[in-house]
Amino acid sequence: MQVAMIKDKIVPVDELEPIYLDRGIYFGDGVYEVVRSYEGRIFALEEHLQRFANSMAAIDIAGVDIDQIRTRILKAFEAADIPDAKIYFHITRGSAIREHDWDVNAEPNFFLTVTEAPDDKEEKSKGIAVSTHPDWRWKRCYIKSLNLLPNVLARHDAAQKGCIEAIFVDDSGFITEGSHSAFFAINEQTLQTAPLTVNILPSITRIFAIKAGKNIGLKIIEKSLTPQQACDSDELFIAVTTKDIVPVIRFDGKTIGDGKPGKYTKLLIEEFRSFTV
Amino acid sequence: MQVAMIKDKIVPVDELEPIYLDRGIYFGDGVYEVVRSYEGRIFALEEHLQRFANSMAAIDIAGVDIDQIRTRILKAFEAADIPDAKIYFHITRGSAIREHDWDVNAEPNFFLTVTEAPDDKEEKSKGIAVSTHPDWRWKRCYIKSLNLLPNVLARHDAAQKGCIEAIFVDDSGFITEGSHSAFFAINEQTLQTAPLTVNILPSITRIFAIKAGKNIGLKIIEKSLTPQQACDSDELFIAVTTKDIVPVIRFDGKTIGDGKPGKYTKLLIEEFRSFTV
Repeated sequence: MQVAMIKDKIVPVDELEPIYLDRGIYFGDGVYEVVRSYEGRIFALEEHLQRFANSMAAIDIAGVDIDQIRTRILKAFEAADIPDAKIYFHITRGSAIREHDWDVNAEPNFFLTVTEAPDDKEEKSKGIAVSTHPDWRWKRCYIKSLNLLPNVLARHDAAQKGCIEAIFVDDSGFITEGSHSAFFAINEQTLQTAPLTVNILPSITRIFAIKAGKNIGLKIIEKSLTPQQACDSDELFIAVTTKDIVPVIRFDGKTIGDGKPGKYTKLLIEEFRSFTV
Repeated sequence: MQVAMIKDKIVPVDELEPIYLDRGIYFGDGVYEVVRSYEGRIFALEEHLQRFANSMAAIDIAGVDIDQIRTRILKAFEAADIPDAKIYFHITRGSAIREHDWDVNAEPNFFLTVTEAPDDKEEKSKGIAVSTHPDWRWKRCYIKSLNLLPNVLARHDAAQKGCIEAIFVDDSGFITEGSHSAFFAINEQTLQTAPLTVNILPSITRIFAIKAGKNIGLKIIEKSLTPQQACDSDELFIAVTTKDIVPVIRFDGKTIGDGKPGKYTKLLIEEFRSFTV
């Protein structure tokens, strides 16, 4: 008899809940999104749904109705009744006895959580420290997949160093992005971030950070930075859905500017806020 | 109230089964092994347990007792009573509300299945076709982690081309290994495979294939091949726990040798069998 074991308990494979055979856990064979609400309104939901659809297409998960996903998100968000919420959702390719190749008829699994968005007032007002880590991720990071072990390891390494975020540096010595954020520098009224390639997530918050930059009169340049160039910058910040814009005041132990959030970064935070309320 | 949604069903986050909050599914934050039994005996269990311990150490999962894992495997194997079984098991870093960095006190989750080992007699006697795929995997493939999306995508691509396995080719144009196997060539009584680096899984079957090669008088060389060199080889094969040695008779559409399993490969299959019974 084919059996499974969950901790110390033996159960027939036929009696397993489908979640135990989820390809998400066996292979990370799925894609996800995180959206945020501000004061009861979900921000940039359509942009996130479009990227979700792109990620599914990129790994060939077919037959998922985006309208149904949107309906589920709205229903869960209403049920939770949390004004400032973090909404996480993923689709995996379904549940089946473990086999690398997939059954095209497998039914995808949907999962979502609505939780309180963590308060980041202190991070925003004081700024955060970041540290670099080699970019060990796979070569298709434009897909927002469940293969996040390198991100997790880098983030843990940063935490061990007393930092809030890990900034990835590729084999050529250039910064790609953060373990869960986009990365920006400001120098002489120019906002700089890495160009989008297959190795960088097309961050939604990046789009709005760039829009905010234009609105406050910054020139935009999409060009990768080295860690040394980051250290020498006037201002640095990260951009991420759950926290929008967060000033970076230390980079690998080096103080940025005068060690306080920069003036343009503060203006960007204000401008960004105007998009969300 | 913090809520979750499983397909269309809303449940309070507090009432979720821990498996839904498994870091394995959120991040692929776990490691696994596959062992095989032949006629009621598990082959190379200690070697697999040692690699499992190495993988856990590499991603900093601590406090898992390998003796307890061994006991669980033997107990489940006995309960299943399948003489030729495939035993899959993984450890994840535990269950928690999704957060990249981890709680060092999280209790790891163990999961195992014992299933019938698929019959591969035809593959062994006739040989298989393989196709190449860019190696999109992360840069620490010596860790046998649950981040397997690039493997899954490559394997699916191979299947679409009528092939049984995908052979990864790195950015420098060299073959690393298969999506779920080690890769070997034989030329003039020399057995060749890629050297072990951080980007290659230290395959247990590779160790025994090399041992078998020595036993039948082959010279061993650990040096990467290009796809062209593979095409021009006398013989090719893959090595994987679930099937041990499988001859490769087509490589990217090109027939290898006379299109039948090579003489040394057949000798290696025989020699390997002597290890397992």
